[in-house]
Amino acid sequence: MHIFSNILGIFVFDEKFNAVEEVLFSNPEDFKNRESIIAELKNKHKSLKEPDEEALKSILFYFKNKKYFSDFYSKNLQLSISGVKNSATKDILIAQAINSVEDTGRTANFLAKRLREWYELHNPEFSLATENNEKFAHEILEKEKKELLDGIGINIDDSIGADFGQKDLEPVMGLAREIYSLFRLREIQLGYVSALMGEICPNIKAVCGVLTGAKLIEHAGSLKRLSEMPASTIQILGAEKALFRHMKTGAKPPRHGLIASHPLVAQTPERMRGKTARALSDKISIASKVDYFQGQFIGNTLKEGLEKRFGSFEV
Amino acid sequence: MHIFSNILGIFVFDEKFNAVEEVLFSNPEDFKNRESIIAELKNKHKSLKEPDEEALKSILFYFKNKKYFSDFYSKNLQLSISGVKNSATKDILIAQAINSVEDTGRTANFLAKRLREWYELHNPEFSLATENNEKFAHEILEKEKKELLDGIGINIDDSIGADFGQKDLEPVMGLAREIYSLFRLREIQLGYVSALMGEICPNIKAVCGVLTGAKLIEHAGSLKRLSEMPASTIQILGAEKALFRHMKTGAKPPRHGLIASHPLVAQTPERMRGKTARALSDKISIASKVDYFQGQFIGNTLKEGLEKRFGSFEV
Repeated sequence: MHIFSNILGIFVFDEKFNAVEEVLFSNPEDFKNRESIIAELKNKHKSLKEPDEEALKSILFYFKNKKYFSDFYSKNLQLSISGVKNSATKDILIAQAINSVEDTGRTANFLAKRLREWYELHNPEFSLATENNEKFAHEILEKEKKELLDGIGINIDDSIGADFGQKDLEPVMGLAREIYSLFRLREIQLGYVSALMGEICPNIKAVCGVLTGAKLIEHAGSLKRLSEMPASTIQILGAEKALFRHMKTGAKPPRHGLIASHPLVAQTPERMRGKTARALSDKISIASKVDYFQGQFIGNTLKEGLEKRFGSFEV
Repeated sequence: MHIFSNILGIFVFDEKFNAVEEVLFSNPEDFKNRESIIAELKNKHKSLKEPDEEALKSILFYFKNKKYFSDFYSKNLQLSISGVKNSATKDILIAQAINSVEDTGRTANFLAKRLREWYELHNPEFSLATENNEKFAHEILEKEKKELLDGIGINIDDSIGADFGQKDLEPVMGLAREIYSLFRLREIQLGYVSALMGEICPNIKAVCGVLTGAKLIEHAGSLKRLSEMPASTIQILGAEKALFRHMKTGAKPPRHGLIASHPLVAQTPERMRGKTARALSDKISIASKVDYFQGQFIGNTLKEGLEKRFGSFEV
């Protein structure tokens, strides 16, 4: 007797290749857990064996019957749908969210340059006084609100900038509002990433911090793939271009990729960077393995190990 | 007797180079209108003449006196400040605003790509159904609002996307809101540009429309500079790279620059584009001159002239 399973169910065939027993799958979950049912059946019929090439031919011929066609179609579809549905795991959400954090930040700073140029026509001194873009957008909003309350033009009379009417000021303020709320959105998304990471990868979060950690997961593709990487790969993750240049032309190999933005590496003097990057990626590699297999929280121990060697850092 | 004017005022010197009469400027406006005062003085003292080289030396020596130094300093500063203050004319505002319109639009579309990728994890069918980015952002906002009211997950159960909790959905919705409001801001700024153009260059607006017209002014630097350009320059404004390639390598000269996005040129068949671009830039050149010298509104006549030749178009 032969046992055979496909997407429809598990079938037991007698020597004449008639199905004598069948367990049909009612949903994709059953298909994924088929191993246990197979073991059960094998326990029941002692003489069951996997079909050899000859037997397989006859078994496959059995399923060529038209009555199975629509079943095959619908089961396959169900399986694909469930695959798509379950592909969005939390680490994929982290990857999407951290990309969005980067995009919103980049966008806000890009628009802030435009805002400065525009607003400088009106009040050049003010723009020069504030370097931080987020603060700048916030401050001119506060300022203009105050001036509207105090009656227009209390400080502005001293400015060497042009006099803007309310009509000219309104679109500039609209841009400032938009920039400010982009920066706010970035904060919210960063908080979301931080919460997700606390949930699924607390160790990576403790060692790398939110930004660097999330970028590593994003770049690796998933937490699983990051956990499978050796420390040396994690060390230069994101420096692929430099790595291939090294392999092709013999230029110096990269010492760090994404982890260059990690405070520990960033605060190290230039010539020591390789050493700290190596030690850091070691710990990250451990942390990601622990996180993927949902081990205990050892993030603080890992961080302390680094701090003992290189001095304390904040992530 | 000699007459001499500088930033401080207008001075009349006798033959021994002592100042016998002086008209001091009290503000930068006086300095700008000095010609009329000079004419007045010349009328009063018939023998006045401009100093020759020899006389100039003695006169300049007269102003080397230290008592004038702080006056020179403060007057110069006043003049610079007034220059900066008045440099922000309405056409400069048009240039800033149209740049901002372009930036906001580009930014919104850039972020929309991120939004689509992210939201597709949750509901892939929905993203595919709507191509327009603004509509997409608006629709998912409406959709989620409706679903919250109807109890979560009315249609979403049929989707092959992943199930998002409210916590996972919130940052995505935040991004959608931001994108939608960027598109709204773009509309508001475009309305502002349109109003400004109706005020200072109604003819360009009638011939080119808001977008193309404003971009031409922005690229030329000011309405004044646009009005000084020959039609052939306006035709290839914005295609400088192609022009220099033509001059250096003998490649084909560009047929149009910024005006390529004008509906008249855009709707013309490829091989006719040069002809329409030439005719259009002709009319733009006329319109800009009329606008700069604040002549009558002839925009409709110009547009009709083009329509008679090439068929009607909407700007």
